[in-house]
Amino acid sequence: MTTKSGKIYLVGIGPGSPQYLTPAASDALSASDVIVGFRAYIEQIEGLTAGKEVVSMELGQELERAAAAVDSAYAGKTGAVVSSGDAGIYGMSGPVFRVLTDRNWDGESPEIETVPGVSAMQAAAAVLGSPLMQDFCAISLSDLLTPWEKIRSRLEAAGQGDFVVALYNPRSRRRQTQLLEAREILLKHRPGDTPVGIVGDAFRPGQRVKVTTLQDLEQEVESVDMVTIVVIGNSTTYLHGGKVITPRGYEEKRKET
Amino acid sequence: MTTKSGKIYLVGIGPGSPQYLTPAASDALSASDVIVGFRAYIEQIEGLTAGKEVVSMELGQELERAAAAVDSAYAGKTGAVVSSGDAGIYGMSGPVFRVLTDRNWDGESPEIETVPGVSAMQAAAAVLGSPLMQDFCAISLSDLLTPWEKIRSRLEAAGQGDFVVALYNPRSRRRQTQLLEAREILLKHRPGDTPVGIVGDAFRPGQRVKVTTLQDLEQEVESVDMVTIVVIGNSTTYLHGGKVITPRGYEEKRKET
Repeated sequence: MTTKSGKIYLVGIGPGSPQYLTPAASDALSASDVIVGFRAYIEQIEGLTAGKEVVSMELGQELERAAAAVDSAYAGKTGAVVSSGDAGIYGMSGPVFRVLTDRNWDGESPEIETVPGVSAMQAAAAVLGSPLMQDFCAISLSDLLTPWEKIRSRLEAAGQGDFVVALYNPRSRRRQTQLLEAREILLKHRPGDTPVGIVGDAFRPGQRVKVTTLQDLEQEVESVDMVTIVVIGNSTTYLHGGKVITPRGYEEKRKET
Repeated sequence: MTTKSGKIYLVGIGPGSPQYLTPAASDALSASDVIVGFRAYIEQIEGLTAGKEVVSMELGQELERAAAAVDSAYAGKTGAVVSSGDAGIYGMSGPVFRVLTDRNWDGESPEIETVPGVSAMQAAAAVLGSPLMQDFCAISLSDLLTPWEKIRSRLEAAGQGDFVVALYNPRSRRRQTQLLEAREILLKHRPGDTPVGIVGDAFRPGQRVKVTTLQDLEQEVESVDMVTIVVIGNSTTYLHGGKVITPRGYEEKRKET
C-alpha cells in the first residue's frame, strides 16, 4: 500500500464527568478527524466532536466500531476510539488490537496511542473511601467472552489470596445469579461482616452509593445492574464514618498509636 | 470544638505528566490553602502551588504527611494531599484514613473528597499495548506493611486464577529476590513464553519500556527498580507488533474471523 496510514488514539474519557477528562484525552479528541464510540459515550463528549466525522454505534458492536476505526486509519485518517473509564480496562483497546492482529498490523502503521483514563473501579473506590489500599483484583462477571467456570475459579482465587475485589458487570437482566454466586464463594474465605460498597454512576448525575456487608449483599442485589461497580473488602477492611477503609497493610493495627 | 473543620482533598496527580492531571485535580489544588506531599510530587505540580502553604516531606513520612493534613483540616483549613497516580491505589488515602480513624473522625468534619487519578499500572499498560483487557490484579511486592508470606500467597492465588498481574514496588536496593520469587510462583501456573512488560517512568521524561517473557525476566531484573511497574500476561496474552496484548476473552480466538 502506498497510502500513508493514519493514527488511532484509544481514549479513556474517565467516569463520564468533564472534570475527569484529562488534557491528554481532550487533545487526542481535538487532533482526530474521526471519533468512534458507543452512542452514550459520544454524547458525554459532544462539546468536543463538532466538525468531526462521528461514528456512533450501539453496545455489542465493539468489533464493528474497532473495524471502522482501523479502516479509517489505514485510509490515512486520524481517529479516536472512545471508551468510558480506561480504554485498557474492559474497554475498546481489546477490540482494536484484535482487529489489528487479524489484519497483520506491523506495529507501526497505523500508529496506535493509548490515552488511559480513570476507570469506573477507581471512581467507585474514591466515592466509597479507601477500599483499594491493599492488593486488589478486578473481575468482570460477564460470561459473554469468558466461560463462567473460569470466572468462578478467579473468584475462588481472589478469596484464597484475600484480595480486595472490584466486580465489573455484576448483574444484568439476563444474568441474575452470578453476583450471589460470587458472594457465596467469597464468604468461604472472609467474614460475613466484610464491608461491601455498591456504586452506580460514580461522579455522574444520579450517582448511587450503598454500603453493606458480604452477608447482607443478598438483600441489595436489586440495586445492582450492569453499570454498577461492587467493591468487596478483604479480611482487614473496616467501616468508619460511613467510609469503606482498607488499611495499608496487615501489620498496621487499626487503633495502634 | 467550636472551630469549623476544613476539608481534605485526596488528590491523585496521575503518572506525573501535566497531560494527565485531571481538571478535578487542578481544581482541588487551586481550592486548597495547604498542599501536602512527597517532595518529588510537589515538584511535579510546582506551577500550581504558588501562594500556598506547601508541606513537602520525604518518602517514608506518609503518616507524618497525613497527620499534617488532618491537623490543618481540624484547624479549619482546606488542604490537598498529593499522591502520584491514584490516591486510592497504594497512595495517600490509606495514611489519611488511618489518622482520621485514630482520631475518631465522625465521617463528616473535616470533609474528605477523593480525586482519583490515572495509576502507574494504567500508564504502563497504555505504553505496553493492551495487557489488562481481562481480569487482573495489582500486587505490591513491598513487605514493609504486608508480610512476605501473605504476598507469596497472593502471587500463588493470582497464578491459580490466571489473572494478568501488575506488580508495584517490584524491587529495591534492599529487596532483590522478591521479583524472582514472584516469577517462580507464576511459572508454576503459566508458560515460560508468557509476555512480560517492564515500564519505568511511563509518560515522563526518561520513560523506559522493555518487553520480555516470564522465562527471560530473570535476565532483566537489573532494569527493574521501585518505580517500575512489571505487567505479567495471563495464559492468553500474546505479542504482536511489539505490543503486549491480552484478548478480550477466553472464547475469542486470536485469528478467528
